[in-house]
Amino acid sequence: MLKKKNNGFLIVISSPSGAGKTSLSKKLVSKKNNIQLSVSLTTRAPRKSEVNGIDYEFVSLQKFEKEIKKNSFLEHAKVFDNYYGTLKKNVLKKINSGKNVLLDIDWQGARQVKKILPNQTLSIFILPPSIKELKNRLMKRKHDNEFIIKRMSKARQEILHWKEYDYVVINDNFQKCLKKIKEIISLEIYRPIRQQLVKY
Amino acid sequence: MLKKKNNGFLIVISSPSGAGKTSLSKKLVSKKNNIQLSVSLTTRAPRKSEVNGIDYEFVSLQKFEKEIKKNSFLEHAKVFDNYYGTLKKNVLKKINSGKNVLLDIDWQGARQVKKILPNQTLSIFILPPSIKELKNRLMKRKHDNEFIIKRMSKARQEILHWKEYDYVVINDNFQKCLKKIKEIISLEIYRPIRQQLVKY
Repeated sequence: MLKKKNNGFLIVISSPSGAGKTSLSKKLVSKKNNIQLSVSLTTRAPRKSEVNGIDYEFVSLQKFEKEIKKNSFLEHAKVFDNYYGTLKKNVLKKINSGKNVLLDIDWQGARQVKKILPNQTLSIFILPPSIKELKNRLMKRKHDNEFIIKRMSKARQEILHWKEYDYVVINDNFQKCLKKIKEIISLEIYRPIRQQLVKY
Repeated sequence: MLKKKNNGFLIVISSPSGAGKTSLSKKLVSKKNNIQLSVSLTTRAPRKSEVNGIDYEFVSLQKFEKEIKKNSFLEHAKVFDNYYGTLKKNVLKKINSGKNVLLDIDWQGARQVKKILPNQTLSIFILPPSIKELKNRLMKRKHDNEFIIKRMSKARQEILHWKEYDYVVINDNFQKCLKKIKEIISLEIYRPIRQQLVKY
């Protein structure tokens, strides 16, 4: 009999901001899907709507740098002027208890994760329909011009790395894109590395 | 815009005989699915129901060995006392015209194909529900005892290699197994290697 291993796996999702990654992630994370979000550490100030320990673990620069020195991070990056990172122990604890863990990180983080946990990682890149559409979406959020220019530059950098992922899905229709990502995740258990032969 | 490349890819399906591979392959191959079968060369004698050029290209041992010397094969193997092989040119012609090509071959063939065309190959292993069930299926076909022993030994050898494939699916229910394989194949186009960014 073929039996799914008890361990879960990591789902890494990257995309330029404005491609819908955050909304998609929120829909994916549920008990029913057996997917949990990994809560990142960050040194940036919380936004009004954000809750410490749920959206992020907000920490001081000193604390963050201490964890870097201790090699505690599965991945970490400096984005604009702030640090973001995922603690190894948080992710491994969840995976080892059979949960799948969603990481919403950029291409640099994705690379680090793939390097440390190559066999436990499924990576998906979300593309916006076009660069123009991405700019429209960012402008709708009513950011100032300088912010948009900075973001667009970063978005272009991010998109350069779409080929490094296991899968790429275009988000021109939210529901279709979500469905496709769910299918990709659901097929992951048919990889031999996720299975074991028992009583055969 | 993300656009599927014009090239098709190879679908390699392996399994011990009796696991339903042939029936599954027949259901997969269709114009609608854009999947064609690759017709193998073989030196074995045709069975009553088999048609030359459709089931196999039946050739002499001399002709087969000549093609081996010319390095014409994508894969070839000796199974029991007969040679089987797939000509590179046949497969590449179909792939380059946008067709997906199904190869129904054993683990040795699968290895050769992966080595020559790593980026054009999706490999799937079909497992029978159990060794016992496999034996039952073979016995239903009313083969003699010696034949069954030989086949079971070969089946055990084949099963040893299930982990070398991209995906593994158990065939305990034909329709479910077929559906799963179709899903696996349909998601293959979401691999970055099958896509290109145009007018972005």
